[in-house]
Amino acid sequence: MIPNLQIDSERLWGMLMDTAKFGGTPKGGVKRLTLSDEDKLVRDWFVAELTALGCTVTVDEVGNLFARKPGKNPELPPIAMGSHLDTQPTGGKFDGILGVIGAVEVMKALVGAGYETNAPIEVVSWCNEEGSRFAPAMLASGVFAGVFTPEYAYTREDRQGLKFGDELDRIGYRGTEKAGDHPLQAYFELHIEQGPILEDEGKVIGVLTGVQGMRWYEITVTGQDAHTGATPMRLRKNALVGAARMIEAVDAIGQKYSPDAVATVGLIENKPNSRNVVPGEVFFTVDLRHPEESVLQAMEDELRAALVAILPPMKLEYDEKMIWNSPAVKFAPELIACVDHGVDKAGYSKRRMVSGAGHDAVYIARVAPTTMIFVPCEGGLSHNEYETIQPEEAAAGAQVLLNAVLEYDATLA
Amino acid sequence: MIPNLQIDSERLWGMLMDTAKFGGTPKGGVKRLTLSDEDKLVRDWFVAELTALGCTVTVDEVGNLFARKPGKNPELPPIAMGSHLDTQPTGGKFDGILGVIGAVEVMKALVGAGYETNAPIEVVSWCNEEGSRFAPAMLASGVFAGVFTPEYAYTREDRQGLKFGDELDRIGYRGTEKAGDHPLQAYFELHIEQGPILEDEGKVIGVLTGVQGMRWYEITVTGQDAHTGATPMRLRKNALVGAARMIEAVDAIGQKYSPDAVATVGLIENKPNSRNVVPGEVFFTVDLRHPEESVLQAMEDELRAALVAILPPMKLEYDEKMIWNSPAVKFAPELIACVDHGVDKAGYSKRRMVSGAGHDAVYIARVAPTTMIFVPCEGGLSHNEYETIQPEEAAAGAQVLLNAVLEYDATLA
Repeated sequence: MIPNLQIDSERLWGMLMDTAKFGGTPKGGVKRLTLSDEDKLVRDWFVAELTALGCTVTVDEVGNLFARKPGKNPELPPIAMGSHLDTQPTGGKFDGILGVIGAVEVMKALVGAGYETNAPIEVVSWCNEEGSRFAPAMLASGVFAGVFTPEYAYTREDRQGLKFGDELDRIGYRGTEKAGDHPLQAYFELHIEQGPILEDEGKVIGVLTGVQGMRWYEITVTGQDAHTGATPMRLRKNALVGAARMIEAVDAIGQKYSPDAVATVGLIENKPNSRNVVPGEVFFTVDLRHPEESVLQAMEDELRAALVAILPPMKLEYDEKMIWNSPAVKFAPELIACVDHGVDKAGYSKRRMVSGAGHDAVYIARVAPTTMIFVPCEGGLSHNEYETIQPEEAAAGAQVLLNAVLEYDATLA
Repeated sequence: MIPNLQIDSERLWGMLMDTAKFGGTPKGGVKRLTLSDEDKLVRDWFVAELTALGCTVTVDEVGNLFARKPGKNPELPPIAMGSHLDTQPTGGKFDGILGVIGAVEVMKALVGAGYETNAPIEVVSWCNEEGSRFAPAMLASGVFAGVFTPEYAYTREDRQGLKFGDELDRIGYRGTEKAGDHPLQAYFELHIEQGPILEDEGKVIGVLTGVQGMRWYEITVTGQDAHTGATPMRLRKNALVGAARMIEAVDAIGQKYSPDAVATVGLIENKPNSRNVVPGEVFFTVDLRHPEESVLQAMEDELRAALVAILPPMKLEYDEKMIWNSPAVKFAPELIACVDHGVDKAGYSKRRMVSGAGHDAVYIARVAPTTMIFVPCEGGLSHNEYETIQPEEAAAGAQVLLNAVLEYDATLA
């Protein structure tokens, strides 16, 4: 029998606004770089708030925070909820933060109702998701999942040459628990969409089924610099016209496999980039994403076929290489079902979707059953001080998180 | 009766190689910026060489050099031959220089043969054609033709803030003759093609009929930055895809009006130019050229129609403006005929053509009957230290220049 517990919308919004002061910017955003003084302040708040609720807080060796409320069965690994509290240099108040504070609100609702779960329940805050100060992104969830070693993490440097390990020590958050030595029963991550789909369709909740596979390519097209006035059209080897056709071809590949595919040329460098010189060399990047590896492979095949079909007939040479391949992630069906039911129980509109962006959940999915819940953000805007969501959207996300955790926990009786 | 005078190929090549030492670079090019110490050296050589031939050298107030050999009829204005002796920062040994040194060789051939022309004959070296040190290009021929004032020229500054007028004084080449107060009977300019057409067709001489009209535009396309992973294809406002279609449209306009038209996007700036951001703004330039103003106008109309047809349906906005309009120039038919006959007399292959690049002749054509003669350069390469022509090509050009001047002069008897 699953109780009808409710989160407190005002309390949730209050915590979001209060913690936004740690690194708050004049424009209403948040600058809270990993392991900065502001990061320490929000961590101190996290520890105090959850300790006061009766939770036990542990810190692992790469700065991940776990706040546990015991369950009836101490043998079970915990059901974890969370995300991250670090931000971009000109970040917003919700990216990552909603997933942690929403989980804190769920914990408060459970404690307030005196409800005892079967499994322990945890709120998790993963360290350095953004990767803005210390690249790469999702560093400490990656160590937790065995993707990176702790030593790799410790030696990452910011632009001033300060090391991740030293900065962990400086703010007092290098814990003793070995990273990953912390089995999870399940992991639920609430997050803002960071895209425009839910808003465009007027849906309140995104029920995530996975994360897109992503492949990045770098392509250089080589022709011949020439005087724009003195070189007839038929004698040109115009690298920019070749690149333009490829930009269109990449877009067409994305259109062909829509709505699930995206394909983008985001970066282009033209040489010599002078008004009166026919371009002799163009470098550009390609970003292909799709939830199915087989479709992603078909998209890659079409990209390569377009290169062959377009460039050599224009007397252009090219060099192409894949520089990153992040396989598609499928979330756990039993967790997805719990989110689905949780939305229906609360009466929100929903759509199934696949995340186009990376999240800690991508790595955690390697070591525990995982899923995510999305709520809309205004205009799809994120990584921006003007990132905005409405209080009722935050509340809806937290309520679904609570419902899903309760339903999942009920299966462990 | 026109005599069969011959230029001296070895003497011509010797002068080209000797003067290339003034500013010669390790790679075999020439760096001889306007009014530099190297420019003074080549001017001193010019004055000495032509004075030794019995010519009278005058310098006008903006540094143009005129070396005159009297004719039978002192009442006639001179027939002028020339080009420029300044180069690009990493220029070659022939761009401009061939037209001056070729004219010096013609003068030597005339003096050597003891042939007395009807009109005076002049070798002219125009100051600051390249515009590399002092923008704009063709500065002093422009003052000569009344396009710019001398004061405008004097106040042009190089990157160090040194003024054109002060540098004229520094190297001792600010003359007393008022610029333009120097009527010309006719003006012939020998030049390397700086394009690939003659080489491609295996022709020795280009008989020029004019200079292309040229119009330059700046276009900014505005869409919306968005996350490449989280933004479905149908919700994008991708400024780079819009720009790519415009790059293709510009190329198609050039193809449509080929072989005389050229149309080019040479410069593009993409924002934010990041691998995982859908581009929100793209700036690019358009360069349209054609020998007929009416066709050029049709090309411009098609450019504007393409903007309307392509961008708004993609939910993209744009801003377009013409930033330069250089009208087409038609050379003097009677001078073109003399060049034509001069080529036939020497037995070279030829083709009529229109210059796609600007030259001093563009401005001089406003104040005197003018034409040009082109010879091939290897691979069309110019404004480059590897710019190359063969000795026999230089000789062919100078011989045609001599033949044309003699035929034209014969009409003045």
